[in-house]
Amino acid sequence: MENFIFHVPTEILFGHDLEKAFASRVAALGKCALIVLGGGSVKRLGIYDAIVDALHEQGIRTVECAGISPNPRIDEAKRGISLVHQENVEVIVPIGGGSVLDCAKLIAAGAKSEADPWDLVLGNSPISDALPLATVITVAATGSEMDPHSVISNPDTKQKLGWSSSLVLPRVSYLNPAFTYTVNGWHTAAGTADIMSHTMESYFSVEEDAYLQDGIAEAILRTCIKYGPIAKADPTNEEARANLLWANSWAINGLIGTGKAQAWSVHAMEHELSAYYDITHGVGLAILTPHWLRHFSNSQTVGRIARFAKEVFGIEEEMEAKQAEAGIAALSAFFRSLDIPMTLREVGIDETYLAEMAKNSVARSGGVINGFQPMTAEDVEAIYRSAL
Amino acid sequence: MENFIFHVPTEILFGHDLEKAFASRVAALGKCALIVLGGGSVKRLGIYDAIVDALHEQGIRTVECAGISPNPRIDEAKRGISLVHQENVEVIVPIGGGSVLDCAKLIAAGAKSEADPWDLVLGNSPISDALPLATVITVAATGSEMDPHSVISNPDTKQKLGWSSSLVLPRVSYLNPAFTYTVNGWHTAAGTADIMSHTMESYFSVEEDAYLQDGIAEAILRTCIKYGPIAKADPTNEEARANLLWANSWAINGLIGTGKAQAWSVHAMEHELSAYYDITHGVGLAILTPHWLRHFSNSQTVGRIARFAKEVFGIEEEMEAKQAEAGIAALSAFFRSLDIPMTLREVGIDETYLAEMAKNSVARSGGVINGFQPMTAEDVEAIYRSAL
Repeated sequence: MENFIFHVPTEILFGHDLEKAFASRVAALGKCALIVLGGGSVKRLGIYDAIVDALHEQGIRTVECAGISPNPRIDEAKRGISLVHQENVEVIVPIGGGSVLDCAKLIAAGAKSEADPWDLVLGNSPISDALPLATVITVAATGSEMDPHSVISNPDTKQKLGWSSSLVLPRVSYLNPAFTYTVNGWHTAAGTADIMSHTMESYFSVEEDAYLQDGIAEAILRTCIKYGPIAKADPTNEEARANLLWANSWAINGLIGTGKAQAWSVHAMEHELSAYYDITHGVGLAILTPHWLRHFSNSQTVGRIARFAKEVFGIEEEMEAKQAEAGIAALSAFFRSLDIPMTLREVGIDETYLAEMAKNSVARSGGVINGFQPMTAEDVEAIYRSAL
Repeated sequence: MENFIFHVPTEILFGHDLEKAFASRVAALGKCALIVLGGGSVKRLGIYDAIVDALHEQGIRTVECAGISPNPRIDEAKRGISLVHQENVEVIVPIGGGSVLDCAKLIAAGAKSEADPWDLVLGNSPISDALPLATVITVAATGSEMDPHSVISNPDTKQKLGWSSSLVLPRVSYLNPAFTYTVNGWHTAAGTADIMSHTMESYFSVEEDAYLQDGIAEAILRTCIKYGPIAKADPTNEEARANLLWANSWAINGLIGTGKAQAWSVHAMEHELSAYYDITHGVGLAILTPHWLRHFSNSQTVGRIARFAKEVFGIEEEMEAKQAEAGIAALSAFFRSLDIPMTLREVGIDETYLAEMAKNSVARSGGVINGFQPMTAEDVEAIYRSAL
């Protein structure tokens, strides 16, 4: 294994009726909270009231920043930062899915920086401080509640970029499976694909010595395969929602990537798709992953893909190549069974920008992403084309 | 799943040549460190010098508390606490195995309490503060480097008791696989059994809804089964030592027990054995576990034991009862293959105290330990007898 640091101090409150415990943690972080929200469903569902009432009972003043987009935009973060300054906000409390949490992270860092927030995303300005974050997650998808990552879009530059800072790792996160009961079939499927993609970005490597981490990754994948369909068919199934929600955190909080090189190749490719076409992130990942695996299936990688087929889908085959291909096909069929459209055309993407997006996807890594296999713009374009 | 809180803020530095990074973390915690040591092997092996030199380079003064026993005793903790007061120690730095770390935890808590340290262990006095701990682990066994637990023996009362406090969760722990290369075959085997026992104490439950956690537990068990024999046969095998060391932390830091009831039945039984006979903890656990499983194999539990047989040992059987028994036999054979003596007589235990120890083992839980199945003193005595 490679040397690594693992440090995830986020306190997780998991389960039902923990609003009061959550509010007591927020009270220790600040007297005025910025409540960051998406389109308003958390208000209709009563989640907002449950949280905000508990905060008010703790004597915390709340300020609202609503309307964060599914692919959160830089201007939305700027609006939140202005509110922080106007209202002397001391703690950021996003209530929603990964988009809301990701935007809240940039608000937290941007509020403590003189730099333009987009420069923080680009890495042009260092992040040296941030307001504390206390999150309430309502969708199992991005794992943002227990990780230091955030993805922000800039429509002006057609960029959707990830950035990270340990300073925006949430101090406390409240995970209530019941808050995810109302996630619709589409987002349950896309979220399941997102969790699986995070797991596979760590899992697929040519290193074979992180046996423990790879075994944990397989357990996360099997959890998604077992419970994704159940949650979609039976949205209030507590066991399914709870397992997906907890798997969500562990897919991306760093554990399964410890001791391994990380490239996140599929995310780099998908961010271009959702920057250009505003598609659902998890759907983009589901479409690309099987084509990515097939594109890079060769003598160096086939053993790992075959292991994936066996351990995740229970596929037994004598020939490694056959087992690997069966695993890729099973993955594709699984996503399709969740009613995920499995071609780019089905989500409205045609040839127009493929070459441009392919070039952009590897631009930040000097033209080559060194992941499962080195991936150039030519590889990305070929993968896009095979996914059309 | 049951509601839970998961909060493990320990920073893990994992890998080689990280003494300087470790020392910089210690410097942030205090200017004078109490170095807690066992029998002196870390000095012979150069580990002590590597750590202490790095601490001195950071301007940290060090005070030594050596000679902690394999089953650490209350008087040893008291000696450490006296040193803390005499020397104005600000941070506790154990270098050694779980015994050294466990003793260091009581020193850390005892130094900040007016109460008699044994009252902290008994739970008669609350723990409200502790000095910070920065640990260097040299044996993969107890997981003490990333958990809030400690076990202390009192020879006067023939008690060996576990206690916990989030205040003694290490702030930082340095896990270097090379520091475990010199662990001998006996302790490599006993440590592997200890990791597996921690995992099984969480894994064996009649609850079936914590699928993710149980899958992770199986990954930890498979890691031990794969690498325990390799590490024993080839002590400097980096891959084996690294996987065992990282598995060690995750077996007991709380993750695999989240959302599940916890009883730790086998530990309760084993603590009596090592309190009365001073045997190696992991060996006691290995001896008792198969007999515990067999004693409680019934219609309510057989499904879980059969799943264990399949997922951990790859045993396929039509009949659940047959599969479960084959799994128990495979576990026993695995421990025996590591040259662990698998009967109580082989480690010098006869009938003399069985009834007394059985009574003691359940005394703290009001006569019944409600774990995999409710366990009374009669059950414990029967398990001891079958393990003779």
